[in-house]
Amino acid sequence: MALKIYNSLTRQKEVFEPINAPYVGMYVCGPTVSGESHLGHARPFITFDVLYRYLLHLGYKVRYVRNITDAGHFEEEGKVAEDKITSKAILEKLEPMELVQKYTHLYHWAMDQFNNLPPSIEPTATGHIIEQIEMIKKIMTDGFAYEANGSVYFDVIKYNEVYSKKNQPYGILSGRNLEDQLDTTRELDNQDEKKNKVDFALWKKAPVEHIMRWQSPWGEGFPGWHIECSAMATKYLGKKFDIHGGGMDLQFPHHECEIAQSTVCNHELPARYWVHNNMITINGRKMGKSYNNVVKLSELFDGSHPILTQAYSPMTVRFFILQSQYRGTLDFSNEALQASEKALRRLMDAYEWLKAQSFTSEKKSTDASLDQQLKTWVNELPEFMEDDLNTAKVVANLFEMVPVINSLKDKHITAEAVSGATWQLVQAQLTLFIEQVLGIKVESGVNKKQLNGVIHLLIDIRKEAKAKKDFATSDKIRNQLLEMGIQIKDEKDGEVSFTFS
Amino acid sequence: MALKIYNSLTRQKEVFEPINAPYVGMYVCGPTVSGESHLGHARPFITFDVLYRYLLHLGYKVRYVRNITDAGHFEEEGKVAEDKITSKAILEKLEPMELVQKYTHLYHWAMDQFNNLPPSIEPTATGHIIEQIEMIKKIMTDGFAYEANGSVYFDVIKYNEVYSKKNQPYGILSGRNLEDQLDTTRELDNQDEKKNKVDFALWKKAPVEHIMRWQSPWGEGFPGWHIECSAMATKYLGKKFDIHGGGMDLQFPHHECEIAQSTVCNHELPARYWVHNNMITINGRKMGKSYNNVVKLSELFDGSHPILTQAYSPMTVRFFILQSQYRGTLDFSNEALQASEKALRRLMDAYEWLKAQSFTSEKKSTDASLDQQLKTWVNELPEFMEDDLNTAKVVANLFEMVPVINSLKDKHITAEAVSGATWQLVQAQLTLFIEQVLGIKVESGVNKKQLNGVIHLLIDIRKEAKAKKDFATSDKIRNQLLEMGIQIKDEKDGEVSFTFS
Repeated sequence: MALKIYNSLTRQKEVFEPINAPYVGMYVCGPTVSGESHLGHARPFITFDVLYRYLLHLGYKVRYVRNITDAGHFEEEGKVAEDKITSKAILEKLEPMELVQKYTHLYHWAMDQFNNLPPSIEPTATGHIIEQIEMIKKIMTDGFAYEANGSVYFDVIKYNEVYSKKNQPYGILSGRNLEDQLDTTRELDNQDEKKNKVDFALWKKAPVEHIMRWQSPWGEGFPGWHIECSAMATKYLGKKFDIHGGGMDLQFPHHECEIAQSTVCNHELPARYWVHNNMITINGRKMGKSYNNVVKLSELFDGSHPILTQAYSPMTVRFFILQSQYRGTLDFSNEALQASEKALRRLMDAYEWLKAQSFTSEKKSTDASLDQQLKTWVNELPEFMEDDLNTAKVVANLFEMVPVINSLKDKHITAEAVSGATWQLVQAQLTLFIEQVLGIKVESGVNKKQLNGVIHLLIDIRKEAKAKKDFATSDKIRNQLLEMGIQIKDEKDGEVSFTFS
Repeated sequence: MALKIYNSLTRQKEVFEPINAPYVGMYVCGPTVSGESHLGHARPFITFDVLYRYLLHLGYKVRYVRNITDAGHFEEEGKVAEDKITSKAILEKLEPMELVQKYTHLYHWAMDQFNNLPPSIEPTATGHIIEQIEMIKKIMTDGFAYEANGSVYFDVIKYNEVYSKKNQPYGILSGRNLEDQLDTTRELDNQDEKKNKVDFALWKKAPVEHIMRWQSPWGEGFPGWHIECSAMATKYLGKKFDIHGGGMDLQFPHHECEIAQSTVCNHELPARYWVHNNMITINGRKMGKSYNNVVKLSELFDGSHPILTQAYSPMTVRFFILQSQYRGTLDFSNEALQASEKALRRLMDAYEWLKAQSFTSEKKSTDASLDQQLKTWVNELPEFMEDDLNTAKVVANLFEMVPVINSLKDKHITAEAVSGATWQLVQAQLTLFIEQVLGIKVESGVNKKQLNGVIHLLIDIRKEAKAKKDFATSDKIRNQLLEMGIQIKDEKDGEVSFTFS
């Protein structure tokens, strides 16, 4: 067995071979923190979390870098106009870093809710301005970028001419032909500054009202969007690293531009495997402001978006996403989420029950075919993961096992049907694949209201027992509650309260 | 009433007057994320969180900036030697930003546990290298810094000469006399580079093995510690802002150096009010590695440090710290924490009970003196806060009210003793001061184990009831549990389980 992963660059599944095993370098494009994370962000971050988890499970030492884009033009609805009055005192002005802080905080909260492991490094664009400037200088020195009016542009035509001869034309990843792009690209702002409309900005001159600005050899400005990923990936993972990931919408132009920038600077393609997850649609439509179907993660978790009839737990959303293989399309709807919620509960009920059972490894099986079937199902789990992270098939096999577990629980079969060793294998592999690999957390669902309700019921029963002179029962309740650190107080006149210790 | 705050700069309590009300700019020195946060970090961050909360309560629009020091020399135990082998591939080398990520994550987790509000901006030193370089250039241009062998030093003697004439000598904040310092300062590394041993580094040349390094006009290096706070405070709060906070140990040299740097660049003292919390001692001793008494916050929360006999909740620690006024010394011990835990539970039990009661505002009081006493206690709460954040007195008054609340709860007094309006006032002010101002969160303390235990006890009682043919009781238990979404299953042969819906 070996992990096979679909490489967008070669358009085929390939065996994953790290450049320098056991080390693996993985770069994933992170969010722009100018707004709250939405459902569209959930899929890439969960997909690459599962890839990260699986690589760790395989024993690789992974450096997982996921950036935070905090440079550029930031605005919060209704606040931009205000900000442009430059005569105001500094404290009265909109400070983009306040928005960065607010949305970074919300983003981290959401990632934590999803049980995504923190990446090894989360570099920010504003934290790497110098590195970006250095990279731009290098690209200019090599003749692939030019300054125009305080901005710097990448010369795509020249790059394509030179690198086409090396079999690495501009468009190598997305398969887009530069001639077609030249024919179809619409006119852009500032395009008169550019030699060609396909050129992209490496550095932008900051207009007077632009707050985020840094000193550079070309005057005050800010970096273009693409250069940050090239600079930070090179800094933390080296000139050539193993995996570059992101949503399919980033293939062009973002990843194409990254390839061009890094290739000029480092003289090779930056990453070996380019991995892209497919998009999420909402009730069959593209997600977009005009459709009013952009569901923020907080709205998903509290059910406040109009297309939802209820709140969905982060684990339900995670499970919903992992029920499909990451390269397939995924249509989101309230109904689909409800189905996932129900399915997840069914799976976790069976799993948690089985996990609590004890099996003796010496016990032989009385139903060899069932025994073998269970072994097959669990042994297929790594095979599915290693076939381009087919979490859909992993989930399907988990559900094959649920009725067997429930039969054991309901005593329709006895534990002896299956050997103790096989039960132990099933337990161990379920824990590994559900909790470690898929990252599904057992949700407690316990709340204080429930505990209060149950305790008050006990106190009530105890009063009745005392009334019936059943002191054995009333003492038992008092003593056992005390053992749990729950003390009944104030019983004298019918009002009862209790405290936890 | 007006907020009075002790200003370390003038060595007296002063009425707080913002430079540009309603805006308030506050800068607090944050942690160096080269290790896990410990008890010593808890006090400043909780102190300034309470100040932030109180300023917000007073209606100010506060921009609260708390930095993260992530530049400098980073090491993790046992990892540094390995890192120095520079021939290794980039992924095999220690990457300081991995440690930064790890410890920043832990730090944010701890701040969240303490219920500290996130600051408005959390700028990082590595995110502001350009701003620091620009500031150093300015200081050099003005003649208060000099380059030596790729490093840049601040000329303290010259600064003192020039600014003593303007009544702002070096040492103005800490009261230290420069001549005394010249006599007593011990010889330092690289001191031969420096003109005088009191000079401090603005920029340090990076030795070959130093990983964190940036291009600068003086070659590759990294910023000195003090310059980051000057650069970031100026950027986000302006040349002169309202409050600069930190632990008392930062007065000298850190804040003194900040004052010198910012004054040279901006021609005025950077902050109007300098606020310093006192230190925490542990069992009467200074905290330090040599005493083996550095308690990490995670060790505090799980009770794993040898000086602790149990785990303490973040709210217990917060409450313990707020039981003293921030400028007093505070001795930490296991016993003191136990006492705080008990006291907090007593307070919160009374508070939560009172909060759940309903009072009608029309009801008159039958005990005018008690009514007046309660009003006095709550009216004193803002007075104490406004007297230099005297949380110790706030807590004391809260405890004055606990026996009154408990008397009402225990029916030793009737609700009519006090007017409905006063009870409502007490309810509102307790919520304001306990939850909003002191930031004490109601802790649920509910866990699945407790709930399981209680339910199993009920199931047990139900079985006994059935054995005694007491079907009224057994049905009552089943039905009421069902109403709470708890279903008893598999009762047939003595094994009982249940599920939550």
